[in-house]
Amino acid sequence: MNKIAFKDLKEYFGKEITIEGFVENIRDLQWVQFVILRDFTDKLQVTIEKSEEKNKEMVELISNLPLESTIKITGTLMESPKVKLNGMELIPSTIEVTSESHHELPFNYKDLEHVLSDTRLDYRWLDLRNDKNRLIFEVQSAMVSALREYVLNENFMEIHTPKLIGTASESGSEVFEVKYFDRKAYLAQSPQFYKQMAMAAGFERIFEVAPAFRAENSNSNRHTTEFTSFDIEFSYIDSYRDVMLFEQKLLTHMLKRISEKYGEKIKEVFGVDVIVPEKDFPVIKLNDLYQELETRYGYQIPKEDVGDLNAETEKLASRFAMEEYGSEFLFITDYSKTKRAFYHMRENDVPQGYDLIWRGMEITTGAQREHRYEILKEQALEKGLGEDVKFYLEFFKYGCPPHGGFALGVDRMTMLLLGLPHLREAMFIYRNPDRLEP
Amino acid sequence: MNKIAFKDLKEYFGKEITIEGFVENIRDLQWVQFVILRDFTDKLQVTIEKSEEKNKEMVELISNLPLESTIKITGTLMESPKVKLNGMELIPSTIEVTSESHHELPFNYKDLEHVLSDTRLDYRWLDLRNDKNRLIFEVQSAMVSALREYVLNENFMEIHTPKLIGTASESGSEVFEVKYFDRKAYLAQSPQFYKQMAMAAGFERIFEVAPAFRAENSNSNRHTTEFTSFDIEFSYIDSYRDVMLFEQKLLTHMLKRISEKYGEKIKEVFGVDVIVPEKDFPVIKLNDLYQELETRYGYQIPKEDVGDLNAETEKLASRFAMEEYGSEFLFITDYSKTKRAFYHMRENDVPQGYDLIWRGMEITTGAQREHRYEILKEQALEKGLGEDVKFYLEFFKYGCPPHGGFALGVDRMTMLLLGLPHLREAMFIYRNPDRLEP
Repeated sequence: MNKIAFKDLKEYFGKEITIEGFVENIRDLQWVQFVILRDFTDKLQVTIEKSEEKNKEMVELISNLPLESTIKITGTLMESPKVKLNGMELIPSTIEVTSESHHELPFNYKDLEHVLSDTRLDYRWLDLRNDKNRLIFEVQSAMVSALREYVLNENFMEIHTPKLIGTASESGSEVFEVKYFDRKAYLAQSPQFYKQMAMAAGFERIFEVAPAFRAENSNSNRHTTEFTSFDIEFSYIDSYRDVMLFEQKLLTHMLKRISEKYGEKIKEVFGVDVIVPEKDFPVIKLNDLYQELETRYGYQIPKEDVGDLNAETEKLASRFAMEEYGSEFLFITDYSKTKRAFYHMRENDVPQGYDLIWRGMEITTGAQREHRYEILKEQALEKGLGEDVKFYLEFFKYGCPPHGGFALGVDRMTMLLLGLPHLREAMFIYRNPDRLEP
Repeated sequence: MNKIAFKDLKEYFGKEITIEGFVENIRDLQWVQFVILRDFTDKLQVTIEKSEEKNKEMVELISNLPLESTIKITGTLMESPKVKLNGMELIPSTIEVTSESHHELPFNYKDLEHVLSDTRLDYRWLDLRNDKNRLIFEVQSAMVSALREYVLNENFMEIHTPKLIGTASESGSEVFEVKYFDRKAYLAQSPQFYKQMAMAAGFERIFEVAPAFRAENSNSNRHTTEFTSFDIEFSYIDSYRDVMLFEQKLLTHMLKRISEKYGEKIKEVFGVDVIVPEKDFPVIKLNDLYQELETRYGYQIPKEDVGDLNAETEKLASRFAMEEYGSEFLFITDYSKTKRAFYHMRENDVPQGYDLIWRGMEITTGAQREHRYEILKEQALEKGLGEDVKFYLEFFKYGCPPHGGFALGVDRMTMLLLGLPHLREAMFIYRNPDRLEP
């Protein structure tokens, strides 16, 4: 537990230390053995002089040691400017093998370009030994921490809502069915209803980070059957503009934190800039956007998508936002009510919500919710929703503050932040209709 | 969004402000109306003089307003020592009703003693308006934050593991089955296998806060079918003692934070002391504990439980820890291998793990895990586990550092921290075999 992180090694020059890590490489030369040891934070060269009598046992051990075994070494850390790897080397006095990699690696995790993605996923724990892949999850963890830091600072409270629910829930997408003793349960597609229940309880400002489940039988680079959702809901708003402003501040804070801590590294490893927005995110009405896309890029949205976005519009909307406003973000408002959930508040029949576009993709649907029982009930009926939302409608019978919120997909955000080609790269373990393993 | 929290109102004496909240009470007297308004943080008296002509509309509005409606008020905040409620009152100039509670409340949430627990759960959003219940979740959120703060500070990385899994997983308890397109999936009972996969990937120190699912058809005050698990796993340990020490530090940090922020309030509302441990948690071997319980309390563990704990032992173990060591916590080690999971490392056939007892209940099972493929495989076979753990065994074929970890149930911890009689009090939404609603 008190293991020294390799990135902190330079504090130990000249000292005897004990360290542990994976054996990433061994160069066994005539007079010397070089072992490259890896921990989560960095790498280190271990140098063993073959001619020294006291090294005999170690030399033999290293000669027979398969790569990717883990070892524990005690030795003296030397500052060695001639060593390319961080200008240091460890001169060991003892080496203990803590686990042996008996088996031939199914692929070379250091060079993934020509490895089939299914092979990589099948052996995800090896795939994740790749330096670049490790960094993805370090950044993802920092991203979620930064989001949470912001909302906790704004006095949001964390809640944990149930994923097993009694009725197939709100949205059009399919839900997974669970055998629940002698009845059926369903997996929550989002915590939407329960976030709003918290508002009816007077919880005012809540967030949740939890899995969400979608039984969509589609394979795309941006979909999965299970993802991590960062959900926000808060009360006493005057309009969905309050929700937009909050999300803008939240994302700006997060990007600032990531830029400070990982900006350079991300640029170096992924070739992507982390851009911290310096002004308000631009806002455009959906119909105005259609107009702009037609005028500028000759793009006309297909009839069936009118009132909503599609993948192509999202891409072009991003291009437009950059060209017109120099912004990576674009809020789009005034969707058609036929394309929005029944629980979005409406004013003059216009849903009081928005989508947020970032780097060519929709990352949020946010809205002020309809909190008045009679109107909400009517809007549910209009969408043909009856029994399934009955329990939810009850939440609004006994007073409920005006409120709104949104959700961010942690995996999708990670993908866009680092410019990854597919959602599976941004998930510790990826799931799709054909994949439940490992 | 810029709503003033009631707890901060004293900064606004003499000023015109706009506030929002629930109407908790109205006293409509001959000359004056008193409205008690509630937000998440406190309560406030609003005073309306009936005789004043300009108040006519407001008086009428309040006369007809059902309790638990939400309103938005602009007015002047006066320091009024004669007002019992925080020595202040708001003199309103305008009142806007933001939601009306049309319906008669099914029970009085301010006095829950004689309300059936099923009624309370059916209307959980009303039940949670109770001051005491709100505090439970404020403390729970702070508790999880404090745990997370500690591990992030120790360079742990947050991961999100899948809850949909391809094979029924590790433990004896039953798993929920999910219809997954044309095959079956199962809901993860714990992230155990995936936490360990992270170790094999070289992630070194990880944590996860996520739901865990148990299809146990039992009703008790400490069980549920879905709970929130705070999971920890870390590499390069020398023994399970490292895991115990880490958990001790983690819990001590959490209790310190809770004590600082909520200690007094918890004492006042729940009558429970938050005790921050000041020394190492005592450790006892299971057989020595049996001996002590027999000698001290004349308790003999039933044959079928030998090698493990049962509810009665847990209670008495706590009593013993307090009497012998003045400690609320007790680590128990040296369980029988027949009662422990196959993945616990063994030394001389003794599982290298522990249970941690707090306030009469087991809160953790922790262990050093067996990280060596051949031994692990053998231990799995010995427990009769074959195909179900095959994918998991693969993780250990290509080197894996020595590692260990544990899990804490967030809900159970909340229950014990606040001295609540049942787990359902500590869960935002409770689930058991008979309950999937709301």
